[in-house]
Amino acid sequence: MVIVHPTNGTYLYVGLEFDIVSDIKACLNLVETTGFDFFLIPLAKPRQSSKNEDNGVISNILDFEPSVSSDLELSGNTWNSVVLGNLSCYKLSDGLDLPRLENYFHQQLSWAQHLSLRTSFVVVDGQLTEEQHIALANMVCNALYEFPRESICIRVCIDDQLKLSHSENDKQKDYMDSWNIWNLYRQCCHYHSNLSVALECKDIVHPSLSSSFFQRWLSEPVRYVILDTKVFLKNRQGYPVLSKAFQEWLQKFFPYSVDILIRGEALHPNGYSSYLQYLGYLYTKQPTVEESYRLEMPYFDYLQTPLQPLSDHLDSQTYEIFEKDPVKYCKYEEALIRCFKDRLSLQGRRVPLVVMVLGAGRGPLVNATIRASEQVGIIVRIYAIEKNPHAVWTLRSIHQREPSWKIVEIIAEDMRYWNAPEQADVIVSELLGSFGDNELSPECLDAAQRFLQPDGISIPSEYTSYLCPLSSPKLYQEIRSLSYHHRDGGNVSSSLEVPYVVRIHQGQYLAESQCCFRFEHRGNNSSFLSQKPYHHFRYRRLSFEVNGPIMLHGFAGFFEAQLYDTIYISTHPRTLSHGMLSWFPFMFPLCYPIYCGDKSCRITLHIWRKTIPGKRIWYEWMITEPVVTKLHNVHGRCYSMKCS
Amino acid sequence: MVIVHPTNGTYLYVGLEFDIVSDIKACLNLVETTGFDFFLIPLAKPRQSSKNEDNGVISNILDFEPSVSSDLELSGNTWNSVVLGNLSCYKLSDGLDLPRLENYFHQQLSWAQHLSLRTSFVVVDGQLTEEQHIALANMVCNALYEFPRESICIRVCIDDQLKLSHSENDKQKDYMDSWNIWNLYRQCCHYHSNLSVALECKDIVHPSLSSSFFQRWLSEPVRYVILDTKVFLKNRQGYPVLSKAFQEWLQKFFPYSVDILIRGEALHPNGYSSYLQYLGYLYTKQPTVEESYRLEMPYFDYLQTPLQPLSDHLDSQTYEIFEKDPVKYCKYEEALIRCFKDRLSLQGRRVPLVVMVLGAGRGPLVNATIRASEQVGIIVRIYAIEKNPHAVWTLRSIHQREPSWKIVEIIAEDMRYWNAPEQADVIVSELLGSFGDNELSPECLDAAQRFLQPDGISIPSEYTSYLCPLSSPKLYQEIRSLSYHHRDGGNVSSSLEVPYVVRIHQGQYLAESQCCFRFEHRGNNSSFLSQKPYHHFRYRRLSFEVNGPIMLHGFAGFFEAQLYDTIYISTHPRTLSHGMLSWFPFMFPLCYPIYCGDKSCRITLHIWRKTIPGKRIWYEWMITEPVVTKLHNVHGRCYSMKCS
Repeated sequence: MVIVHPTNGTYLYVGLEFDIVSDIKACLNLVETTGFDFFLIPLAKPRQSSKNEDNGVISNILDFEPSVSSDLELSGNTWNSVVLGNLSCYKLSDGLDLPRLENYFHQQLSWAQHLSLRTSFVVVDGQLTEEQHIALANMVCNALYEFPRESICIRVCIDDQLKLSHSENDKQKDYMDSWNIWNLYRQCCHYHSNLSVALECKDIVHPSLSSSFFQRWLSEPVRYVILDTKVFLKNRQGYPVLSKAFQEWLQKFFPYSVDILIRGEALHPNGYSSYLQYLGYLYTKQPTVEESYRLEMPYFDYLQTPLQPLSDHLDSQTYEIFEKDPVKYCKYEEALIRCFKDRLSLQGRRVPLVVMVLGAGRGPLVNATIRASEQVGIIVRIYAIEKNPHAVWTLRSIHQREPSWKIVEIIAEDMRYWNAPEQADVIVSELLGSFGDNELSPECLDAAQRFLQPDGISIPSEYTSYLCPLSSPKLYQEIRSLSYHHRDGGNVSSSLEVPYVVRIHQGQYLAESQCCFRFEHRGNNSSFLSQKPYHHFRYRRLSFEVNGPIMLHGFAGFFEAQLYDTIYISTHPRTLSHGMLSWFPFMFPLCYPIYCGDKSCRITLHIWRKTIPGKRIWYEWMITEPVVTKLHNVHGRCYSMKCS
Repeated sequence: MVIVHPTNGTYLYVGLEFDIVSDIKACLNLVETTGFDFFLIPLAKPRQSSKNEDNGVISNILDFEPSVSSDLELSGNTWNSVVLGNLSCYKLSDGLDLPRLENYFHQQLSWAQHLSLRTSFVVVDGQLTEEQHIALANMVCNALYEFPRESICIRVCIDDQLKLSHSENDKQKDYMDSWNIWNLYRQCCHYHSNLSVALECKDIVHPSLSSSFFQRWLSEPVRYVILDTKVFLKNRQGYPVLSKAFQEWLQKFFPYSVDILIRGEALHPNGYSSYLQYLGYLYTKQPTVEESYRLEMPYFDYLQTPLQPLSDHLDSQTYEIFEKDPVKYCKYEEALIRCFKDRLSLQGRRVPLVVMVLGAGRGPLVNATIRASEQVGIIVRIYAIEKNPHAVWTLRSIHQREPSWKIVEIIAEDMRYWNAPEQADVIVSELLGSFGDNELSPECLDAAQRFLQPDGISIPSEYTSYLCPLSSPKLYQEIRSLSYHHRDGGNVSSSLEVPYVVRIHQGQYLAESQCCFRFEHRGNNSSFLSQKPYHHFRYRRLSFEVNGPIMLHGFAGFFEAQLYDTIYISTHPRTLSHGMLSWFPFMFPLCYPIYCGDKSCRITLHIWRKTIPGKRIWYEWMITEPVVTKLHNVHGRCYSMKCS
């Protein structure tokens, strides 16, 4: 009886943990009648300390005994869809030898695979020594390799961390908190995609809401939150409720598709159903998410290759998606209105005003220009320049149909080579990519400057890209799984040397973004441009201070563009154009995750925009702090933007 | 006129650098008549500050002008074999923009490629800022990619470093010394195999001989040492000589195939020939290297896959090589003599003594046993057990031919499954690999314990492997170039998760080795063994303190074996059996180089010997300090030792 949010259409799954299984059919019955979606049982029967072992006769094969009599107790489908398993580890301090523990671990997972359980939990006790953690991490890592169909969830108790961040005790930085423990397992297992983490709260009633806690965990693969019934309070009617702080805490996890597990004794006469009802109430009272957020959800952490509109023709669907942006064209219209008004007030103005839409696509900017001119009451003539022959059909069709388009002349040309019959007063374009210049707007617009009046206006007039360090185990894992290594002339291409466009969801920006590359297009300066080769080369060195310990996986990129005067569009988190859908962030990955261990750690990035004019443009990047990496994407070997 | 060492047969090549080239034929003539092997010239003509540039008219294509009028001045073969090029970089602080500098750099290398020069030098000035170094490193990295046939040599002046280590001024640890500079270039270029380094001495007459200096540089790809004539003193006859300290300094580099370049004004009436004669004198007066060293030279830094004698049959050549070891069989004979004497003195001794040679191969240990028994005067009967049918033919042939072999019975069996007709007093074997247990000696010898008398002796009686952290850019580069990535079921195998056997030459042990895995074979304890599963599983955690800054590339492995009583054989550097040729060190690589930046940096290694009894055995390893790496070779996915 999954909990559904009434307006968002999202789900919450809640399960129940049993510490012992005397009758699994009774467990299933309780789960089903109460309305839980799944339940968790120990995989092994609790061990009685056998006298046989003490006198040295150890029978290895009998070491493990399942918690249930056999797989016949439930149907195959029930095992697979409703039951999860909890691995019981001997206490590593029991003095048992490592190979026997490994064997016991292996037997349990082998049993879980036999039952087709989706996930097995490994309890990671905060009291273990580093060496014991290493031993367990090694077993987990081997198990992921041996049982490729099994998911393993590392179960860490976060009570200590929640208490600790309460007091923000900086002195205890050597304390191996739950995140550091998880980070050890994750690194040992090399970000295995079948490895996730469960956060367990045992008796914290008022958890701290420190932002660093959430920042860290929300970018991790947290699949479960496990709540002991002890973390619930009683309301006046005696029903279990969570403290205000705990509600807030829990609601932070809801958008990350986290399942909840209830464990411990039911402390209410109605049993576990009151807990389930309360969680349902909490979940459904979440506010409705914004429309734009809902539209983005399918793209969360989905890696896309940046578009190459100069070398590839955009297709119909792509045009359609971008034309739906509810914000972008309003901003352009606003900018055009402001610009036309300024032109109207100019002495000795030319009429009609010549406006050129560079890269008209299927016409949205032509429409914006027509609307703006009508509103201001200025007479314009419009050239709609478009190189994509398929989009030109659309423009011609609209031209025939729409009376307002009689002032539009359609030019099927590449703006870089077009022989313009006259000079423009205003050029309007929407050539920006997620990282500003990455769809070669600078190359196109500077080529177009030759047919702009000396006092002409370019909309946009300038744009700047921004970068900030990014921690995202999820994206690193995704990119690595794409990893393509092919040898061409001894060179190995790699998915980790390619930038991506991605709606970053499970990721954390580790510092405020800093300005990277800036391009300006102000009036006609072609005499200057033609003589300055490599005008579009750029290099930046950016230094960020981040709070460790944290893993660095790459850099997130944004842009801000000045359309005209004070009218901007922005994907930068600080100045974001709210509701604008056309751009997801850019991402530059690093060849391997970098550990930033210090409380305050400096990250220094070097990034180049390199050009072979007329041929291709590419980015190269490396970091020199906290460690030196290789130069990524040398000479554009893995990725470049093609000029034709 | 290459300098040849009279007894070692090694070579020294000496070249001359010209700062300017007015007449390249004259340069060649001087070089040839003086007896130099090659010479170095600037690639570009010195730039006159052109007035054209100041008023903004910059002609990019004319930026570069070759130092010689054309390629016709020398023959193609002379350019290729005798001339090296020096890149002149504008001073980066000249205010010229980066793309122009890159272009100039590119033009020079393109010219060098046109001439087919072997190597081009890039002068790295210690006065550059970090940002300027980054810019230059980026150009070098791109050039290596664009000109795959060109070698680039980074030329660093080490005067400051030699002075600094004189005073061992620890306080100046932030000082970016020549090694750190080189390390930046090398990392940026990702250990490119066409990148090397030249150490230049400008006016240091008495260099410091600090061991940390040599340790660091001798494991780097130092291809050239460049000596200014200013570093030479004058002896009583007025001839140029080097100070005692400098002689010692230079001689450290001779075994690493370093070429020498002389530069600066010839300060002796005889011109450059006196310098050349002196270097020839220095080189030829090096002592003759030991025979064993000479035999090893072809194997320097040559990666070998560890042998698998249990699953593969050794071939004739391999037997032949190992039988030539001048030390190993003497040690065995010594051990057998000691053992036989002890047996002779025993009360109630059994005669004849039953000796079993386990893995007799082509018989060297059988011969050692016969010789030892004759020397001690004890009557023995020998079983020669050998599983390789081809080697059994050899044993049978010797048996027919050699009268002394009449006491030998040849058993064509695998010792693990052989049904012995009686129990042995002594078992002798040589089953050790470079890492001790890596040819599965523990598995074989423990299986053989069942036919050893309760008071029987195993030679060897125990063995221990050792590990120490290793810095070896050379080996990392070699291993990476082997890198094989193939996808089988989604798993990527890698050459960096496989151990190697290698005669480490360009490498530095960063700390004293520590004991890793130990195995003992003392008398008949089969009742104990059969009941303890995974008897051959091992785990060790080793922590080393190393002096940074340095790069860690892996771990070097050795072994020490007690044959009998105080008779040991060892490949451990501290207890090395001198002259023993049978084993080169073992090496465990790491998936990427780790920077150990601190003056005192702790490296913590975890290593496992895992077993699936009867099937295969493998090592897994990871480090947790200074950073956490993944677990290497999980479940033996890249490498394992097969039991059959």
